[in-house]
Amino acid sequence: MSSAIGVDVGGTKIAAGVVDSSGLILESLKVPTPAQDPDLIVQTIADLARQLGASDSVERVGVCVAGFVDRSRSGVLFSPNLSWRGVRLREQLQEALGGEVVIENDANAAAWGEFRFGGGKEADDLLAVTVGTGVGGGLVLAGELLRGGFGVAAEIGHLGLVPGGELCGCGNRGCLEAYGSGTALVRATRFAAHKDPVAAKRLIERASGDIAAIDGPMITEQAQLGDEFAKTQLAELGAWLGLGIANIAAVVDPSLVLIGGGVSQAGELLLQPIRDSYLKALSASRHRPILDVKVAELGNDAGLVGVADLARNSIGE
Amino acid sequence: MSSAIGVDVGGTKIAAGVVDSSGLILESLKVPTPAQDPDLIVQTIADLARQLGASDSVERVGVCVAGFVDRSRSGVLFSPNLSWRGVRLREQLQEALGGEVVIENDANAAAWGEFRFGGGKEADDLLAVTVGTGVGGGLVLAGELLRGGFGVAAEIGHLGLVPGGELCGCGNRGCLEAYGSGTALVRATRFAAHKDPVAAKRLIERASGDIAAIDGPMITEQAQLGDEFAKTQLAELGAWLGLGIANIAAVVDPSLVLIGGGVSQAGELLLQPIRDSYLKALSASRHRPILDVKVAELGNDAGLVGVADLARNSIGE
Amino acid sequence: MSSAIGVDVGGTKIAAGVVDSSGLILESLKVPTPAQDPDLIVQTIADLARQLGASDSVERVGVCVAGFVDRSRSGVLFSPNLSWRGVRLREQLQEALGGEVVIENDANAAAWGEFRFGGGKEADDLLAVTVGTGVGGGLVLAGELLRGGFGVAAEIGHLGLVPGGELCGCGNRGCLEAYGSGTALVRATRFAAHKDPVAAKRLIERASGDIAAIDGPMITEQAQLGDEFAKTQLAELGAWLGLGIANIAAVVDPSLVLIGGGVSQAGELLLQPIRDSYLKALSASRHRPILDVKVAELGNDAGLVGVADLARNSIGE
Amino acid sequence: MSSAIGVDVGGTKIAAGVVDSSGLILESLKVPTPAQDPDLIVQTIADLARQLGASDSVERVGVCVAGFVDRSRSGVLFSPNLSWRGVRLREQLQEALGGEVVIENDANAAAWGEFRFGGGKEADDLLAVTVGTGVGGGLVLAGELLRGGFGVAAEIGHLGLVPGGELCGCGNRGCLEAYGSGTALVRATRFAAHKDPVAAKRLIERASGDIAAIDGPMITEQAQLGDEFAKTQLAELGAWLGLGIANIAAVVDPSLVLIGGGVSQAGELLLQPIRDSYLKALSASRHRPILDVKVAELGNDAGLVGVADLARNSIGE
Repeated sequence: MSSAIGVDVGGTKIAAGVVDSSGLILESLKVPTPAQDPDLIVQTIADLARQLGASDSVERVGVCVAGFVDRSRSGVLFSPNLSWRGVRLREQLQEALGGEVVIENDANAAAWGEFRFGGGKEADDLLAVTVGTGVGGGLVLAGELLRGGFGVAAEIGHLGLVPGGELCGCGNRGCLEAYGSGTALVRATRFAAHKDPVAAKRLIERASGDIAAIDGPMITEQAQLGDEFAKTQLAELGAWLGLGIANIAAVVDPSLVLIGGGVSQAGELLLQPIRDSYLKALSASRHRPILDVKVAELGNDAGLVGVADLARNSIGE
Repeated sequence: MSSAIGVDVGGTKIAAGVVDSSGLILESLKVPTPAQDPDLIVQTIADLARQLGASDSVERVGVCVAGFVDRSRSGVLFSPNLSWRGVRLREQLQEALGGEVVIENDANAAAWGEFRFGGGKEADDLLAVTVGTGVGGGLVLAGELLRGGFGVAAEIGHLGLVPGGELCGCGNRGCLEAYGSGTALVRATRFAAHKDPVAAKRLIERASGDIAAIDGPMITEQAQLGDEFAKTQLAELGAWLGLGIANIAAVVDPSLVLIGGGVSQAGELLLQPIRDSYLKALSASRHRPILDVKVAELGNDAGLVGVADLARNSIGE
Repeated sequence: MSSAIGVDVGGTKIAAGVVDSSGLILESLKVPTPAQDPDLIVQTIADLARQLGASDSVERVGVCVAGFVDRSRSGVLFSPNLSWRGVRLREQLQEALGGEVVIENDANAAAWGEFRFGGGKEADDLLAVTVGTGVGGGLVLAGELLRGGFGVAAEIGHLGLVPGGELCGCGNRGCLEAYGSGTALVRATRFAAHKDPVAAKRLIERASGDIAAIDGPMITEQAQLGDEFAKTQLAELGAWLGLGIANIAAVVDPSLVLIGGGVSQAGELLLQPIRDSYLKALSASRHRPILDVKVAELGNDAGLVGVADLARNSIGE
Repeated sequence: MSSAIGVDVGGTKIAAGVVDSSGLILESLKVPTPAQDPDLIVQTIADLARQLGASDSVERVGVCVAGFVDRSRSGVLFSPNLSWRGVRLREQLQEALGGEVVIENDANAAAWGEFRFGGGKEADDLLAVTVGTGVGGGLVLAGELLRGGFGVAAEIGHLGLVPGGELCGCGNRGCLEAYGSGTALVRATRFAAHKDPVAAKRLIERASGDIAAIDGPMITEQAQLGDEFAKTQLAELGAWLGLGIANIAAVVDPSLVLIGGGVSQAGELLLQPIRDSYLKALSASRHRPILDVKVAELGNDAGLVGVADLARNSIGE
């Protein structure tokens, strides 16, 4: 069957690849994002697509970006990392490439990728949570990717957890992202290490004695070695994520949650606290089925693979 | 076009009606709910359906209930008000009536009714919020009623708003229902009247001097007369609802919210605080479209009308 | 040494006694409070004092009441249970009895009683917490009873714990009293029993099958029998109290906390959760001494004994 | 009357002065704090005292430090900025200087200075709140400086306001300091400027276009020019401080609150929001006197002046 090109436009790099109908990446390219120059970003996307053969099969290009994609999937309402506001991305790319282009939010695309080819390929619905610098989300409900009435569904990073809580990058207080992201994990861990440097001794040693140098991989690795302090930090992250998931479950009732992003490499050290916290926060938990929480399978490729599939499927719609 | 029978099974009464394809109720019946006898409830539903002519057009019966309906829409997982746990309602009714029966959650049915014939008939998606004893919710997304991976989507009354907050009837703390229901309005108003009986003077007079006798209609009516105290109570209710709606918007991004239930008669005195609070709590509100908040149109008939339509449409699926 | 009369005016009963200089009650009387008639309350207090010999040693009468006593200790600013607002209690009693009368808040008097003759007689300072219908508090700091700039110090029941939290009888949200009182214990336990009647089975049985009949003594007794559900309820109460105590410690740094009131009979089942929660919430807990938490020793007599001692000591000041 | 020497040991500089009995500073010195060398700090204090004439009147030296001073006022339990843990400061200084030395916490000393010679000289009690990098506090109750059962009273910066709230430097969440300090003001303002750069336009301009360069004085100055955005930031700071003050009032009931620290230069732009928030959060506010909130008068000298007075008074105790 036919292949398509997927392009994942992140704040620091742009990845592009040719993806076949089984979700395999046949060929790929990666370049830094010219984040300060919105026009150059568009041009770079087009260049990558052409290099990957979009000249031959130009109808089949999918592009996913971090940011709000409008309802008609033709433009980007707002992408803080790309300095984009109201960019008519689809039209610009279609002009450049001469064919149909599909635009999607990156976390949505990743959810679709997992649904079609990854951890959710047996499921009818799922919530994909990407835990990285922020917290991204995508929802597939009854087999369909949820886009929302205005195109900005599943912005779960900005679900409010704690009124008057931690300041979030969005300027509000108490968002899931301010508690459940990798950034939040690192920040909370550094504070905890300052509070109790004895308990954090080994983690601080791993950071060469500099608490400010503690990062996410250090925490995960230290936890995997059995370090109680590091495990506690992951457990607290998981507790916040589980609380967020319970709130999302109250709205859309997914049967499967996939956790992706770097910190998901912690595996059960993260998943079990998520499950415990979800169950504790879930209303009427004794009277309803309990969802599965698993690690996402496609890693960083999920968005690229997912948006390529969306492009392939959309042609002729 | 064809008619169908809708039955709305509430904790205190069962309403049934013949509904035509334009959503008009041609004929209706109402009886008390024999809430202590689960089997008798089923029999009562069947009796009502037969009285309304289900003997002739028995394939077209829809029944909605307060409670968790399972994913296959064949049974009721849990309905505290009806003492139901694991009742195979569809099968029992189909045996009794000899045709196809459709089962739905009552708030979902109401959302569908509003979507098809009420306040949402021009919309592609909506969130219907019913503010009564509790807070019920139904979601229509991309034209489809959302049922959820396990059948229990849109249980928005148990979205968590305040960690460690008000006890909710579900046993958890801080649920939307514990802040945003009519019950919560009345409770908070009575506490406020005790705190400041001077400000609450007229409302207390309306309750014949007995703070414990203040009820929802009194608050609404007093607010409509311009009473600042009563208006403040509605505004606080609206603020909590708006916060809940912002959280739901972070997940599913509806373009329209319809507020139903008795307290919705307060109109703009309730809606404007909802809008203000939603906007304040919404992340990145300057960079995305803002949803509409309106009063639902079908009143108490929404569930009955909606489930009849679901029954009519499902035949032959 | 000399004796004095103490009178404790509660919402339901008035207790009076002759107390010697070692804190022993030599003689006592108890009558119902004529709560609806403020003047009759004053007369009843005077009658009790006279019956106990105040005609002979009239300078030595101390009266403690639930409510705000003004800074000069001459009147009661506000006592909701006694329908008192601005009552010049000292003057009225002095006229009636012909001698000096000392007025004090009941929780303050109880703290003083414990400090002089009870659980704090070895201490230089203490916080006394009375857990009953509400949460009362008294502080002895550097050997002196703290009265406050306006006379209303140690109203710890209305320390705010949770912004937007449980409604409190005072009309605000999130007060310690709304989480840490006996009333709150019973309410939360009933909700928990509804949520999980299986876990609460034995407690419900003790209440003859009626969740609404569960009361404080049942919870304590059941916990003392080892019932995990009841123990969990006490532990949650203790967790809230410990959080409140940590906040109080941030302000006044007491070295001893005494827990009184009916629920204190739960002993370590309540105290250990208090200690754990206090320690967890205390800032810089590794760098400062940790306070003791013990059960108060004087029970319901603490106020009466304390105010008698205050009366005895104040004469000639 | 006699003079005394006061030394205020801060994290970045040490100020010392000769203070007369009316609180006037007759002579003063200031040097950088050798913060990395605990022993050198002690030596520097002694040197300054000697330079100021402590060789002649060595009994009269008071030293205040940021940190926990033990109950006997002989040592410093913990001072994170000075890398001190368990330093026997009084003994070391007395050996070096050959006379009596008084040690006090800096915020306590500042409260005493204000009480004796500044904004509280007409008052019987006060709470002094210093809003700077952190939030410091001192309490004078019934004319006495409150030291606490363990010496660490009035650590109000670590009063808990929001369970699960902002991370505090102490490692806990939700402390007053994390919301009410100058540091918190700047952080929240930067986030708000990112959220709404249009509203923050003038403040950003004052920071030469760099949101990360916004500091406290810019916010205050901009607010004083009438800038709504900057005024809102100060009002939010004030709201948090007022909430903290209401909680402190529930414990110790001061009749006067003095706000010091750099941000207090905002005057009524800060004080009025503090008063409003205090009043809203105060329980039973209609039935009790309302405290005064004013700006502290002694500025950065309060600690030095206060501790000199404590030293002068303590001699011969």
